[in-house]
Amino acid sequence: MGRQDLLARLAQPNERRIVLLVLDGVGDLRTDAQPRTALDEARTPNLDRLAARSALGRLVPVGAGITPGSGPGHLALFGYEPTSPEVDIGRGVLEALGLGLDVPPDAVVARCNFATVDGAGLLTDRRAGRIPTAEGERICARLAGRIEAAGDALGDGIEVEVHPGEAYRFVLLFRARAGTPPLDPGLADTDPQRLGVAALPVQAAGGAGESARQTAERIAPAVAALQAELRDEERANTFLLRGFSKLPVLPGVGELYRLRPAALAGYPLYRGVAKACGMEIVDCGGSFGEVLDRLEERWSDFDYFFLHVKGTDMAGEDGDLRAKLGVIEEVDALLPRLLDLGPDVLAITGDHSTPAPMKAHSWHPVPLLLRSESCFVDECARFTEVEATRGAIGTIPASDLMGLLLANAGKLAKFGA
Amino acid sequence: MGRQDLLARLAQPNERRIVLLVLDGVGDLRTDAQPRTALDEARTPNLDRLAARSALGRLVPVGAGITPGSGPGHLALFGYEPTSPEVDIGRGVLEALGLGLDVPPDAVVARCNFATVDGAGLLTDRRAGRIPTAEGERICARLAGRIEAAGDALGDGIEVEVHPGEAYRFVLLFRARAGTPPLDPGLADTDPQRLGVAALPVQAAGGAGESARQTAERIAPAVAALQAELRDEERANTFLLRGFSKLPVLPGVGELYRLRPAALAGYPLYRGVAKACGMEIVDCGGSFGEVLDRLEERWSDFDYFFLHVKGTDMAGEDGDLRAKLGVIEEVDALLPRLLDLGPDVLAITGDHSTPAPMKAHSWHPVPLLLRSESCFVDECARFTEVEATRGAIGTIPASDLMGLLLANAGKLAKFGA
Repeated sequence: MGRQDLLARLAQPNERRIVLLVLDGVGDLRTDAQPRTALDEARTPNLDRLAARSALGRLVPVGAGITPGSGPGHLALFGYEPTSPEVDIGRGVLEALGLGLDVPPDAVVARCNFATVDGAGLLTDRRAGRIPTAEGERICARLAGRIEAAGDALGDGIEVEVHPGEAYRFVLLFRARAGTPPLDPGLADTDPQRLGVAALPVQAAGGAGESARQTAERIAPAVAALQAELRDEERANTFLLRGFSKLPVLPGVGELYRLRPAALAGYPLYRGVAKACGMEIVDCGGSFGEVLDRLEERWSDFDYFFLHVKGTDMAGEDGDLRAKLGVIEEVDALLPRLLDLGPDVLAITGDHSTPAPMKAHSWHPVPLLLRSESCFVDECARFTEVEATRGAIGTIPASDLMGLLLANAGKLAKFGA
Repeated sequence: MGRQDLLARLAQPNERRIVLLVLDGVGDLRTDAQPRTALDEARTPNLDRLAARSALGRLVPVGAGITPGSGPGHLALFGYEPTSPEVDIGRGVLEALGLGLDVPPDAVVARCNFATVDGAGLLTDRRAGRIPTAEGERICARLAGRIEAAGDALGDGIEVEVHPGEAYRFVLLFRARAGTPPLDPGLADTDPQRLGVAALPVQAAGGAGESARQTAERIAPAVAALQAELRDEERANTFLLRGFSKLPVLPGVGELYRLRPAALAGYPLYRGVAKACGMEIVDCGGSFGEVLDRLEERWSDFDYFFLHVKGTDMAGEDGDLRAKLGVIEEVDALLPRLLDLGPDVLAITGDHSTPAPMKAHSWHPVPLLLRSESCFVDECARFTEVEATRGAIGTIPASDLMGLLLANAGKLAKFGA
């Protein structure tokens, strides 16, 4: 039996509340040039006091040496096996979530590139000379105007939305109009991946079935009309579509583990992943204070709260250790508000490390702090990477965290007699 | 998705160089009678300095309690799942590699025992009274003479080589002559595994196909002729053949991970395993100095170097702790030559432990030292078994090492967005 199935079989609801506080990318490195990490350096009296009463350990996000994107990193924390094909979140959906779009479950989303073709319709630049973002926004507005002007006539029973991204990138979002069959994301990329040939038409992917073929037929005219609209543009005179996908429908954490789960995340990507995992999204701003405001308001409505703090990751990506420890100190200062709510189980960790010296996500294990009445209070005195290596929880796969949270909340029955 | 597949999917080549230095059997034990290990006792100023700038950890070669042979021990270090049937290296091939033979990829190799039969041809001793090695060598020379005298007439379009081993053991190596069909190793052992019966003829194994049947027909006359040659020997008046096998063809580490891999190993068994894993074999002597000579010459030709030092294992097998720490001190003294080359990633570990008190391979985790720009510089001050238990890498399967090496070299793309 898989881990998830076993947990689901043993899950038993109760009133106890679990809080998973994700400090995105919190894990960092000690290197020759940076001898101490942000967690080492930060003044965190509240976290220190909590660590002294907690079990520490480390989570391996995906596997040895594997650097996760935010999707797999969070899926693992929510108990999913992040390399399983069923939990793969398509590129189109991820791009849309990253742009802050709320992707409805019925939408098919494509990640698009503006591109350049010559007079014969053959590709000369698959990125339209990497036009600047403002230029991309202008052309997206033009497409949006074309969509509005067409009304119902664009495509067959579909609605189309265009959303600009960075530089030459944008997103097209397709939905079936009420009363028409649902759309199928089983469509092939139109990008031929080389120059000197025409872009491919929108068509069903190899091996896809009849419903994908029908979706292709409904979407293709809309795409062709939008491409035609750009004919007189100098560089972005067409576009390519890739990564057609829908928000994946995963077995929800609520249903699997008999929880009432909520996500409090200021950034859309994390909201999107949480939504795909069946969590209710509680609207909130991106600061930890705003997250706590909403947590206090909604404390009685749920028994599993995923709280997301983005600042640690952003500072890590910028290579800014001082900013990173600043975010950690901010969280520390507000921690008493969280503790005052009296969560039965509190876990603090990251979805991956974002070491400042690397200015990027990394594969390194992430420190974990777990506090409950039945956690093993080990000898770790602070919530740091080095202390966590000798914690009572040990170094475990991130996807094992869900089982620990449930167990510490008394939400798992005994296995066997 | 399996670990190997995932790594292969994420692999991205670059110019950075990885060095994997295997001190064979380096791991040792602290016991009542041996309170300190060779790594504890050795004076290793260079390794100490390196350890202070590195991440330490421990590798579990195969699994809890599983003592690996050299084959599985190295296969795991090279990223293969050592218990997978596809990576099984046949006994005939292993015996041949262990004797120092270069096994060509087309050869079928059998591990043979001299044996004794009575006047009726029934087995009375399956090991010919465990004749001494010199006696085995004499009889092998006799067989070699018979092979030479027969020329092309021995068997059907095949070449036969005989190589003496220890005591009653030897190896027969069969190759198809140019222009004849390749040989198939799907042959059954001729050893009936009991006395009082005749040895079995060379025949295809149950379930093997037509090509194995043809190989059996081609080889059988040669085997019969060689057995007949021994009729007048007192004890070794026949022989039994077991473990027919070819060098396995594994997906190569070069192809899997987009590396240019080289093996620098003085001993044939390790060259053989590396060759089976698709590494280029750089001819070199067995001392670490000779390995370094060739490494310096070939530094620009590859980006993954497997260096093998045998002495630690030999000393462990002899139960000679002083000899073992002597080898470690020798490696330490030469380490600056390796560091001067500037490897981007350097891992030092063993393929298994060979504790001196056990005089044999063992299952105990092996210490690992990993140095790169993005390793976590933990608080371990020396490269020893005990220090390694509190290292930043933790205790991980040996087959996870490849992912760490690739990641530390920047040779793995991010997983998911």
